[in-house]
Amino acid sequence: MDFPYEETLQRIRELLANNDLQALRSELEGMRVQDIARSLMSLEPAQQLVLFRQIANELRSEVFSHLDLSYQHHLLHELERQELQWVLSGLVPDDLTALLEGLSSEKVRTLLRLLPMRALRNAMILLGYPEDSAGRLMTPQFVAVQPQWSISEALDHIRDQSERGETVNIVFVIDSSGVLLDSLPLKRFILGRPAEKVEKLMQGDVLSIEVNESREAAVRQMQHYDLEVLPVVDADKHLLGIVTVDDILDVMQEETTEDFHKMASVGNLNLSLREAKPSLLYQKRIGWLLTLVFVNIFSGLAIAHYEMAIEALVVLVFFLPLIIASGGNAGAQSSTLMVRALATGDVETRDWLRLWGRELSVSLALGVTMGVAVSLIGLWRGGLEVALVVALAMICVVVVGSMIGVLLPMLLERLKIDPATASTPLITSIADISGILIYFAIAVAILKLPMG
Amino acid sequence: MDFPYEETLQRIRELLANNDLQALRSELEGMRVQDIARSLMSLEPAQQLVLFRQIANELRSEVFSHLDLSYQHHLLHELERQELQWVLSGLVPDDLTALLEGLSSEKVRTLLRLLPMRALRNAMILLGYPEDSAGRLMTPQFVAVQPQWSISEALDHIRDQSERGETVNIVFVIDSSGVLLDSLPLKRFILGRPAEKVEKLMQGDVLSIEVNESREAAVRQMQHYDLEVLPVVDADKHLLGIVTVDDILDVMQEETTEDFHKMASVGNLNLSLREAKPSLLYQKRIGWLLTLVFVNIFSGLAIAHYEMAIEALVVLVFFLPLIIASGGNAGAQSSTLMVRALATGDVETRDWLRLWGRELSVSLALGVTMGVAVSLIGLWRGGLEVALVVALAMICVVVVGSMIGVLLPMLLERLKIDPATASTPLITSIADISGILIYFAIAVAILKLPMG
Repeated sequence: MDFPYEETLQRIRELLANNDLQALRSELEGMRVQDIARSLMSLEPAQQLVLFRQIANELRSEVFSHLDLSYQHHLLHELERQELQWVLSGLVPDDLTALLEGLSSEKVRTLLRLLPMRALRNAMILLGYPEDSAGRLMTPQFVAVQPQWSISEALDHIRDQSERGETVNIVFVIDSSGVLLDSLPLKRFILGRPAEKVEKLMQGDVLSIEVNESREAAVRQMQHYDLEVLPVVDADKHLLGIVTVDDILDVMQEETTEDFHKMASVGNLNLSLREAKPSLLYQKRIGWLLTLVFVNIFSGLAIAHYEMAIEALVVLVFFLPLIIASGGNAGAQSSTLMVRALATGDVETRDWLRLWGRELSVSLALGVTMGVAVSLIGLWRGGLEVALVVALAMICVVVVGSMIGVLLPMLLERLKIDPATASTPLITSIADISGILIYFAIAVAILKLPMG
Repeated sequence: MDFPYEETLQRIRELLANNDLQALRSELEGMRVQDIARSLMSLEPAQQLVLFRQIANELRSEVFSHLDLSYQHHLLHELERQELQWVLSGLVPDDLTALLEGLSSEKVRTLLRLLPMRALRNAMILLGYPEDSAGRLMTPQFVAVQPQWSISEALDHIRDQSERGETVNIVFVIDSSGVLLDSLPLKRFILGRPAEKVEKLMQGDVLSIEVNESREAAVRQMQHYDLEVLPVVDADKHLLGIVTVDDILDVMQEETTEDFHKMASVGNLNLSLREAKPSLLYQKRIGWLLTLVFVNIFSGLAIAHYEMAIEALVVLVFFLPLIIASGGNAGAQSSTLMVRALATGDVETRDWLRLWGRELSVSLALGVTMGVAVSLIGLWRGGLEVALVVALAMICVVVVGSMIGVLLPMLLERLKIDPATASTPLITSIADISGILIYFAIAVAILKLPMG
């Protein structure tokens, strides 16, 4: 990180080391909440609480909302009832929901009891929407005006809401029953004549998302239309809340991390790697590793099938890792290209035939190049016939690996399974099995080896 | 994609099929530019030009700016000089820069000649900043006021700029020489008293980025501080331009795609997979594939070193793919977790000792579990002694693979090489070599096999 937070952290460390809590309290007021939060997460657990208690009451909730989930849970555990009440009541609704999501239902009940009535109601509503839905992501805090109001009335209302700290770059227009009619940038109100009605400003062309739709859909819509705010509505178009672009940045990062982990056959970690306990990491990794051991038994069986050929010409084993690794590598390349392009919406499954055709020609070219390279090593280690065998095997293995890499993610997407499940280790293992079979089949055929 | 663009595309296809260009022209005016752009990219090349020419002149630049680079280049090639002039003059400066970046210098000169003087000057300035810098990302269009102005004067100025279409959610305060003093949300001006001076609103605590810093630094700063606009300044703090959050979304997506591709040992593709030519794909993939063939020769040599052991007990080959694949898989998991955590700033290289220690305990647990699993297969295929060999080898291989997976990305980061270079195929290949050596060394020692 190459911005002010480093200095903040250093200063906080100094003041804590000198135990100069009074100076710390006053200097914290001049620091940015994001920097305080990040600094807190770099301290020893015992010092985290000390620091948090020096933060002015009115800033505590904001600092708290910038902490990673595991640090929030740690503080929840340590803070007194009175302090908790302060922190929780100050959280904006979507941050509160995110916090409560990870807790046991008993703990959730205890915490909800600390909330004032209005915040409690909001939290209950938001928690009612499905996980990963737009509803969970939204905040019910927005500014809305009605079309029959004059612009000066609207501006009074906006000023009023704005003083209470709501976001007002975008002002929503709703009818008297709360149905969303339009969204207008604040500047239109400033440009308009005060006596004119709000409806004069309207264009009636507003994008929104239904509250039960997925948060990925919200992300894609905001990205596609370059929106900074997306209104969330119910089935009857009543405006329920808004999703803002900073929520989107977080979701994008989370989703991407999930995809990265899936590509490496790691279960969904859903929290900071820095903080993950060994037992959790074990649990998230062992499942796929054991599954892959099982898949790899077939590689062993494929080899056992050619045991007599190996005994007859043991030099064949020299090329085995080289050939099967190449198929796996080519397959990993194609599957990663495909998984990422599917995730960003760059390609769609209906393109499969064209992509498959292109992959065939690309992988043939790759295979021939690598076949030439490996045939030179073949000449050196085993003579002309072995060179021919390894070159041919290389071409076939690279083509087959690439085909698997392209088609498996597409197939998964069609079956509504996340294409990232076609992880690099899985593709490599499948490529291994086919590589072994192809290699020995070619060797037996050309070199006329015994089979057993 | 699950939003209005599908309908737009279908309607456009219908109208094009009926060759009803007049209806198309008028309906296009009611469609969203992003949907038109996305639809255009789904059409046959010949139809793309037909559609583009039906777009009203004043919307063409905007549609053009939402096209992927390769489609922009295609249109540049097809459009008449007069049409080009229209399109280029209407582009906002940062979109123009992005377009020119990919072109030959000769083509750039031709296009620049079509620009009006002011746009030409802007483009030349932006193109002067290093690639991937904040300067290349910024737009010089912002609204700035001075501290000695009254709020009503400032609002007049904002209205004036706003009518010319500039973004005004955030208003910058600069002194008479252009030095950035503060950034204020528009709502503060609406809330303030008209006769008051702008300086009364100021807090003097403004974040900015230097024009030559990297665009990743801009992304991280905006993400960390939840900014919707980041001012870009020169070394003397003169305000040069602004980076907006929608630019950031695009950069994040690009950077992530680059990391995904690197993790699979694919060169930087930098354009849509849908559009990539086979020759380009070949070129981006062959380099690493050949490098890995070279690395894998060492696997072959490691096997050759144990040729006599294999001849003595050919059942050892049965377990070879299983054991080495497991080391590679565990290594791929650790390296991906690490590369992603380094990319998001979740872990830093100074944490290496703690992370390494944790990985040791996690991988030991993983190795023991997998060792037990594989020893059962060992019993079945080769008896007690072989079971012992494969179990021990599995534990060692999984631990070694995981260590490589954790430490290599950290080492690369320390050496200022992108940690994503520790790609899954590279980690797998290194794990293969060490796996072969470990496995046969244990087998020779326990089973007292001959070596040759």
